[in-house]
Amino acid sequence: MSQTLPAAIPASVFEQRADAIAEAARELSAMGWTPATSSNFSMRVDASHAAITISGRHKGKLGRDDIMLIDLDGEPVGTDARPSAETALHTQVYRRWPEMNAVLHTHSRTQSVASRLFAADGVVRLQGWELQKAISGCHTHESTLEIPVFPNTQHMPELVARVAAWLDAGKPLHAYLIDGHGIYTWGRDMAETRRHLEALEFLLGCELDLKKLRAS
Amino acid sequence: MSQTLPAAIPASVFEQRADAIAEAARELSAMGWTPATSSNFSMRVDASHAAITISGRHKGKLGRDDIMLIDLDGEPVGTDARPSAETALHTQVYRRWPEMNAVLHTHSRTQSVASRLFAADGVVRLQGWELQKAISGCHTHESTLEIPVFPNTQHMPELVARVAAWLDAGKPLHAYLIDGHGIYTWGRDMAETRRHLEALEFLLGCELDLKKLRAS
Amino acid sequence: MSQTLPAAIPASVFEQRADAIAEAARELSAMGWTPATSSNFSMRVDASHAAITISGRHKGKLGRDDIMLIDLDGEPVGTDARPSAETALHTQVYRRWPEMNAVLHTHSRTQSVASRLFAADGVVRLQGWELQKAISGCHTHESTLEIPVFPNTQHMPELVARVAAWLDAGKPLHAYLIDGHGIYTWGRDMAETRRHLEALEFLLGCELDLKKLRAS
Amino acid sequence: MSQTLPAAIPASVFEQRADAIAEAARELSAMGWTPATSSNFSMRVDASHAAITISGRHKGKLGRDDIMLIDLDGEPVGTDARPSAETALHTQVYRRWPEMNAVLHTHSRTQSVASRLFAADGVVRLQGWELQKAISGCHTHESTLEIPVFPNTQHMPELVARVAAWLDAGKPLHAYLIDGHGIYTWGRDMAETRRHLEALEFLLGCELDLKKLRAS
Repeated sequence: MSQTLPAAIPASVFEQRADAIAEAARELSAMGWTPATSSNFSMRVDASHAAITISGRHKGKLGRDDIMLIDLDGEPVGTDARPSAETALHTQVYRRWPEMNAVLHTHSRTQSVASRLFAADGVVRLQGWELQKAISGCHTHESTLEIPVFPNTQHMPELVARVAAWLDAGKPLHAYLIDGHGIYTWGRDMAETRRHLEALEFLLGCELDLKKLRAS
Repeated sequence: MSQTLPAAIPASVFEQRADAIAEAARELSAMGWTPATSSNFSMRVDASHAAITISGRHKGKLGRDDIMLIDLDGEPVGTDARPSAETALHTQVYRRWPEMNAVLHTHSRTQSVASRLFAADGVVRLQGWELQKAISGCHTHESTLEIPVFPNTQHMPELVARVAAWLDAGKPLHAYLIDGHGIYTWGRDMAETRRHLEALEFLLGCELDLKKLRAS
Repeated sequence: MSQTLPAAIPASVFEQRADAIAEAARELSAMGWTPATSSNFSMRVDASHAAITISGRHKGKLGRDDIMLIDLDGEPVGTDARPSAETALHTQVYRRWPEMNAVLHTHSRTQSVASRLFAADGVVRLQGWELQKAISGCHTHESTLEIPVFPNTQHMPELVARVAAWLDAGKPLHAYLIDGHGIYTWGRDMAETRRHLEALEFLLGCELDLKKLRAS
Repeated sequence: MSQTLPAAIPASVFEQRADAIAEAARELSAMGWTPATSSNFSMRVDASHAAITISGRHKGKLGRDDIMLIDLDGEPVGTDARPSAETALHTQVYRRWPEMNAVLHTHSRTQSVASRLFAADGVVRLQGWELQKAISGCHTHESTLEIPVFPNTQHMPELVARVAAWLDAGKPLHAYLIDGHGIYTWGRDMAETRRHLEALEFLLGCELDLKKLRAS
């Protein structure tokens, strides 16, 4: 599948994004966080474009050719490839925050189980963990980090609206879970976004362990 | 052990199947799903033959020479090697569905434990997980995916009859568990079959985690 | 540390055993079953000698020079090296069963926890698992496999006496646990011994999982 | 970032320490014990200096340039780099015990969860595990190994004072946990320190498993 780029986007810029996405995908896949062709990843290319994983590919074997260009309405640009069904959740981040440049969505077992367990509460509250400080803007374990859990749906506009409603209520948002599904997180660059994802996976895992042990 | 092929089967076709089986075996073994020489794998070769793992080999070190040809009655063709004791469960799939071309049987700890836990119910019901969509024909997390659990036996015809009875009752079947034993799943090609297996391992693991946590 | 061999033992024979032990040690260490320099491994060399790991070495980095020769009283032969403190448990196997040629002792988390949990019962009873068939002489999941759990002690003759008492009572023995410590198992060659160890680790892990889930 | 060394410290000595720290960091990171740029590591260089990880680097990709020189007041020497925020906990060890030459601080999920679970008791008591013998000075599973759990704080002098108070009370100390955070341990060289860390991770994991199972 070939990708034609608009004149304003140098090939080297698109390729840098595509390579960074493919590298992240291979490494997250090796940790088992992208089972069975699930998960999707993107990076901003410029003010009105992003690079995103093509739908249905196995994330453990991703290369530059598995990444496509879209505009911020989620429409393919210069390619016949089909972007992920959940593209609208990526473009929402890029449109809302000009300073955000990468979005990662994974499906680890911990993320999926936590989403089911906390779905009724609608939120996971993380408090008392030193690793909360890995989230940009969080400077002490004494703060409370809220990760909302939205109901799953196959209809993307519904999810986009729930994310928007949370933000419009003025609540901070670093990541969200979707019930029975997985997590979305983002950051100013790929390194920050991966640090967020790694910290959230760790903290959700700790919460699940502690819940099992405290019941003992 | 040498393999002689019938004139109608080109060496390149048998070798392609053997290599694909050996590669899958090595990768599934590395995940710990084939403990202690257990598990077996096959691919259809043509309308009346399949390639299958020879009994008793360590799955982490499988090569082309560890794969043999059988007919769809499970009899060795052109070799003195002995196929897996569970060959009849593979040939049943190829006889029943002309469009199915690969069968994987593994023994992960999650699969074995889930089979014991749900044996009394005779079925695992998966509902509300986005990853159900990795099973071909399943388009929403709102459906219910039923994986039957059949009693274990060292007498294969009994197991074959239980699978047939489920199908003859008109119920959909994508995979089944055998109590205290492991899982069988299949697909149109090796990639689809591995996607099914990876998704089912993930979903069974999530169900077990959730059961531990909900009791808390 | 140099190893001088008796005239009756060809260097190639000792080296084959030493290499097989070192390879097993590195692979078992990579699975996390030999934490913090624990665990020890041996192979029979002839009717009155065995090769065994030198005490205190990190099992993940073992080479041929980390293996020494002993007689079946556990005394070093042709070397100043010190064998493992638990050497008497290895030589007991070689003296009792002329057909046994390898002994593996590991300390996985599953083995240690199972030993504590079942210490009061003095035995783990495995029943209903297909993988019991990986133990030589076991042909059906319907049999019961008994793995005794002996109290831990720093005084080896006490442990040797407990193993002897079990055997003198005419009970079958394929492996045993020591409370808070780890597992011992053996076989006719290294491949059979590793198959036994891998199967027992798997089965003990399944029993622990099932116990957690059935309490739910 | 460049490191200038005092005349009394040969480059080869600093480089040996830096390489040993970087190697330990990469290996501990591969085990998942340093999530999201957390954790820090040091080695003594001489009676009044230590080498320590620079703050905020990803521990899986550490090289010699990610290590800096400090004095035993925790001040940078010959570099503009910023040492870890928790440097005072490392220098406390080097000042208190002239024979101690390495300090490791990690954040595994097991360590973090154990610290939360035992925070109210203020201590984890390990008893009956053979692997206690991996801690220098411990010769039998019958002894009790006490690992204190100190409350977390972003104010380091408070933590330093708690460690000092424990020691001033004459109690043995091989390692300590900080609530919601991680573990500190040390030793006479890097190999001993890593053996301590590996043994403590294992023993804490066993205690958590046993607690889940005994509640069953």
